[in-house]
Amino acid sequence: MVGIVEVSPRDGLQNERAVLETGAKVELITQAIGAGATRIESASFVHPKLVPAMADAEAVMERVPRPEGVSHIGLVLNRRGYDRAVSAGVDEVNVVVPASDGFAKANQNSTTAELTAVAEEVLAEAASAGLFATVTIATSFGCPFDGEVDPARVVEVARRAAAAGAKEIAIADTIGVGVPTQVRTLLDGVREVAPDVITRAHFHNTRNTGFANAVAAYEWGVDWLDSSNGGIGGCPFAPAATGNIATEDLVYTLERMGVRTGLDLAALIPIAEYLSDALGYRVPALLPRAGAFPG
Amino acid sequence: MVGIVEVSPRDGLQNERAVLETGAKVELITQAIGAGATRIESASFVHPKLVPAMADAEAVMERVPRPEGVSHIGLVLNRRGYDRAVSAGVDEVNVVVPASDGFAKANQNSTTAELTAVAEEVLAEAASAGLFATVTIATSFGCPFDGEVDPARVVEVARRAAAAGAKEIAIADTIGVGVPTQVRTLLDGVREVAPDVITRAHFHNTRNTGFANAVAAYEWGVDWLDSSNGGIGGCPFAPAATGNIATEDLVYTLERMGVRTGLDLAALIPIAEYLSDALGYRVPALLPRAGAFPG
Repeated sequence: MVGIVEVSPRDGLQNERAVLETGAKVELITQAIGAGATRIESASFVHPKLVPAMADAEAVMERVPRPEGVSHIGLVLNRRGYDRAVSAGVDEVNVVVPASDGFAKANQNSTTAELTAVAEEVLAEAASAGLFATVTIATSFGCPFDGEVDPARVVEVARRAAAAGAKEIAIADTIGVGVPTQVRTLLDGVREVAPDVITRAHFHNTRNTGFANAVAAYEWGVDWLDSSNGGIGGCPFAPAATGNIATEDLVYTLERMGVRTGLDLAALIPIAEYLSDALGYRVPALLPRAGAFPG
Repeated sequence: MVGIVEVSPRDGLQNERAVLETGAKVELITQAIGAGATRIESASFVHPKLVPAMADAEAVMERVPRPEGVSHIGLVLNRRGYDRAVSAGVDEVNVVVPASDGFAKANQNSTTAELTAVAEEVLAEAASAGLFATVTIATSFGCPFDGEVDPARVVEVARRAAAAGAKEIAIADTIGVGVPTQVRTLLDGVREVAPDVITRAHFHNTRNTGFANAVAAYEWGVDWLDSSNGGIGGCPFAPAATGNIATEDLVYTLERMGVRTGLDLAALIPIAEYLSDALGYRVPALLPRAGAFPG
C-alpha cells in the first residue's frame, strides 16, 4: 500500500500555458475524487503576481466537493499564505522550502535558511491550530540555478521542519533531474533526522526518470507519492519538457506490482481526455494512449 | 557497469511509419558508433513481406562501418534468416522466440514450442560456426493476443535455449506492459535454468514503465540493456504509443546513478534531431527536449 496525493489542480495547472477557469478546476478535482483520490493539492495560496494561474484559490476552495475522507491541501510559502489557506478552509497545508539558495532567490528573493525560518513560523501556527502540515523541500535533487544540491542541505531543512512540528516531509524533484540512487540517499537522510515524520516524494518525468524514482521511493518505504492526472505540469525551466509523473501511469505500475493505491484506473483514464480538451493539447500520460493491460 | 545494445536501426525503424533509405540507416548506425555503441542491432533478416522496412538488410550490412570492437547484430527468426545474416557478414545473431502462442501464431503461424525448436536448430548452426548467438524471448511480460504470460513459459524457452548453446538470453517486453516485479521474477527464473548465460533485457516505454524496468534489471545485475536512440519504435499494437526506451534517457539515468555505460551523452543527444528530421516528427526521447543536468 502506498498513498497518492493528486497534485494536478496545483502543480499541474500552475505550469500550463492555458489557465483554466475556476469551474474547470473544480471539475478536475471532482473527477479526481471520483477516481478515489483522498488527498488533493487543490489550490496554491501564493501571491497572485507570482502565480497568476492560482489567483482563484479561495473560489476553488468554496466550490470543491468535501466528502468524508477527502483532504484538500493548500500550498503556502509564508504566513500570509497560511492565513489565506486557513480562511479558505483547507484540510491541510503544504509549506514549500527550496533546498537551494539559487531557487530561493529567484522565486522569493530569499535563502533556504530564511525560508526555513518562515516555515517554522507557519508550522508553529499550524500546530497550535491542530492543522496537518507538510514541508515540501523543493529542488532536493538539483536546482536550475545552482546545479547540484548537497543532500546535507535537504537533510538540514528536514531536521528543522520536523523539530518545528511538521507531520510530513516531502522531497521534491522540482525540475525532474533526479535518479533512484538520490531518492534513497535523500530519504535515508530525512529518516535519520526525522524518524517519526510521514514521508512523501514528488517527481517530475522531465528526463524519463520520474517513474523509476517513484518505484525506488515506494521500495524504500515512502508513505505517499505525488502525481498529476494526465502528467500535466510541464516545466517552466524547459519549455518542451513534460510535467509531473502521471497518476494513471503510476497507478498502473504500482497496481501491476501488486501494490494497492486506492485509486481506480478505469476512472482515472478518462480524466486525461478531459484535461487534453481543457488545455488544448494531448497531455503526456501514456496509459490513455496505449490502453491498460490486460485490456 | 552495464552494457547497452543500440536497437534503433532494427526495432526502432522497423515500427516507424516512415521507411528510411539504406543510406539514412547507415548514417544512424554511424552516429551510434560515434557515440560509443559497441553492440548494434543493425538489421533484421526476416522475410521482406513480414517486415518490409528491413528488406535492405544485406545492403545495410554492406555499408556499415566495421571498426574494431563494434559488433553488428542480425535479427533472425529461422534457418533461412540465419543463412542470410551469415552471408551478410553479421558479427552475431539474435534469434527471437515469442513466449506466447498467440504472438507466435499471429506473426509466424506457429507456437512457442515449435519456434523454440527452430531456434535450437539455428543455435546449433551458430555454435558450429563459432558465431555468438542470443535468444530474445518476446512477449515475456505480456502478449497482445493472450494477455498475461505465465513466467514458466519464459523460463522453459530460456532453459531450452541455454541447453542448445545460446550465449545470451534476453527477456523482452515487446508491448511495454511490464513492471519491475516481473523483471526480477523473470530474470531469477532465467538465472535458475541458465546460470552461465549472459543476461539482457529489452523494454518499451509504452506505459511509462520502461525506465523503472531498466533500473530494476540493472539493480538485479543484468549484463546488457537494449535501448533505442530517440526512443523511436512506436508499438504496432497501440498506434499512439511511444517506443523503445530511449538510449539518451537511459544513459542519463544510469550515469547519474554512477553506473558507467561506455556511451557519450553529449554525442547521443544530437542523434534525436537527426531522427526527428529523418522520420518527420519529434521523437519521444525527453533528454533532447529538457537538456542534460547539470548543464
